[in-house]
Amino acid sequence: MATELRTTLRTYIRKVNNGLKSFLADRTPSALYSYAQYQIGLCSENFKPLKSINGGKRIRSAIPMLVASCFRQDGYALYGAMSLELFHNFTLIIDDIQDGDTIRRGRPTLWKLIGVPQALNTGMILQTLSNEAAMKACNHLPNSEFSHWLDSYLHLTGRVFEGQHLDISYESKNQVFTAEYIRMAMAKTAVLIGQSFAQSFSLHPKEEVRKLASTMRQIGESAGMAFQIQDDILGLWGDKKKTGKPVASDLRKHKKTLPIVHALENGSRSAKKLILDSFKGDVSDDEAITILEQLKQIGSYDYTQSQVREYTHKALAGLEQVDIDKRLKERLKLIIELLSNRSS
Amino acid sequence: MATELRTTLRTYIRKVNNGLKSFLADRTPSALYSYAQYQIGLCSENFKPLKSINGGKRIRSAIPMLVASCFRQDGYALYGAMSLELFHNFTLIIDDIQDGDTIRRGRPTLWKLIGVPQALNTGMILQTLSNEAAMKACNHLPNSEFSHWLDSYLHLTGRVFEGQHLDISYESKNQVFTAEYIRMAMAKTAVLIGQSFAQSFSLHPKEEVRKLASTMRQIGESAGMAFQIQDDILGLWGDKKKTGKPVASDLRKHKKTLPIVHALENGSRSAKKLILDSFKGDVSDDEAITILEQLKQIGSYDYTQSQVREYTHKALAGLEQVDIDKRLKERLKLIIELLSNRSS
Repeated sequence: MATELRTTLRTYIRKVNNGLKSFLADRTPSALYSYAQYQIGLCSENFKPLKSINGGKRIRSAIPMLVASCFRQDGYALYGAMSLELFHNFTLIIDDIQDGDTIRRGRPTLWKLIGVPQALNTGMILQTLSNEAAMKACNHLPNSEFSHWLDSYLHLTGRVFEGQHLDISYESKNQVFTAEYIRMAMAKTAVLIGQSFAQSFSLHPKEEVRKLASTMRQIGESAGMAFQIQDDILGLWGDKKKTGKPVASDLRKHKKTLPIVHALENGSRSAKKLILDSFKGDVSDDEAITILEQLKQIGSYDYTQSQVREYTHKALAGLEQVDIDKRLKERLKLIIELLSNRSS
Repeated sequence: MATELRTTLRTYIRKVNNGLKSFLADRTPSALYSYAQYQIGLCSENFKPLKSINGGKRIRSAIPMLVASCFRQDGYALYGAMSLELFHNFTLIIDDIQDGDTIRRGRPTLWKLIGVPQALNTGMILQTLSNEAAMKACNHLPNSEFSHWLDSYLHLTGRVFEGQHLDISYESKNQVFTAEYIRMAMAKTAVLIGQSFAQSFSLHPKEEVRKLASTMRQIGESAGMAFQIQDDILGLWGDKKKTGKPVASDLRKHKKTLPIVHALENGSRSAKKLILDSFKGDVSDDEAITILEQLKQIGSYDYTQSQVREYTHKALAGLEQVDIDKRLKERLKLIIELLSNRSS
């Protein structure tokens, strides 16, 4: 079934990719849109079309496509899915600039390739395209709901960058509480995964289906928290070959991810000092190894893994209660497991 | 009458400032919103409320307020005006990062004060607030027009950053044609001034008033072109004390402003070489003085001034034809003249 799901997902990812290709084609200024195509993986570093698209997991667009495939009416779904993929890539451009990251999906990040000023212009173009797709996706909704849906869609930007703000501000704090971490991770990551679970429900022409959207959003947000916390684990203990990022990369960026938050709350005074001292400058390989060992000793690794399981469980338990097609439920269950079990 | 207009404008600017104060009050995360308040001039470098607001000209919000004051129904106007001021400040944050500018309105630019990563988060928050205000401003429109208005509002981001993209890409081009300059200046600046002229018309509850919006937009775009070209003059020959920018600042940024575009098209081979060579590195004071003299000799200064007059004339001629209240027409006439005659 998991293999079948992967094959199914590939089908939807192909549809999204084709949709994105047409949506971005023949727009001007052509240089600006070729930067946008690079970011979403449609073209190479020389801005030539790629045969094999390099667009990452596409999970935020694959989920609404998969949901909509189980409905009879799904004409709106492709635009809804594309709007999320475009939005996600807009936020990635800004995120890479903020973190100074130079590599994404095995290639130079956009700012590294074309400089920060043009990367920012490209980010704003991808956001505009996301809004354009979102407006096309929701224009069949009843008037009152159209406005409500759009208002909430447009607030996604504020939520994600509220999360980014907290994430960056925590870097210079000596103590971050778990509740603060949760607020940040929810805003930065989980809200958008929640949107991708809710998207095709909230856009459905039938009110009885739309009614399920808020529950689906909650399920998606729990799955999104599991996704982010798993990302925290990969950011410290991930396999370089699979993640494409340096070992313990989050440590080197002084990120207060969940394992660090747990260690600062539960570690000995000397363990805390070790971590906080290392965060004052560059983290060496030796320091990184020592800290990772300390984190395991304090129990921060086990705690973080338990949190992935807990949020995954919450998402699955929520899903169990929803009155939807059995096949869709089975597939969403696998998606939720995929989000928390990933190694890249 | 011009003095009366300035007094009137101050009244509207005060209303906008009060509106912005309430709109941004009590939002969290509080640090993020205090950065936003700094950018729009409501608070000091220590994030304390300012008694004397330092928000710049506020022209993009004063115009729709002034227009609406001549209508009987203007309940929507404040949100419409605030949406533009918030939008403009969002674009200024990005623009200052792109240009590496360190001073705005006599104070550190936001990125200089809090760093690029947090400045980017603040930019996205101001844009989200702009969208929120825009949605409040248009929700009384008939359904079909509501969606159309919003779609066009959301495309402003794409237009402005298309302009920024062209502006930056011209820096490394040896030849920029006048038509290319116009496309850039229209997108970067004039489109938003056009929106500010059209805003209160397009949002008016009565269809007969809304019908005038597209003509008002064209008038505003012409006035906006005059505004940008006057800005080009100030960027080379402006009085440092009035503009708050270094002498010949656009020259130092290698900007292909209209005087430069004209000189590269009409100057002698040696004059062109002088300009292009100076653009290869830092422009010294001596080089700047020589180039400014050359530009006057080639006639680029006179040509640029004639273009300010031409666009101003186009705006005024358009205004003459519109069937609106005589008092409003007189005031808009003064605004158009103000936009092109400014020295700061």
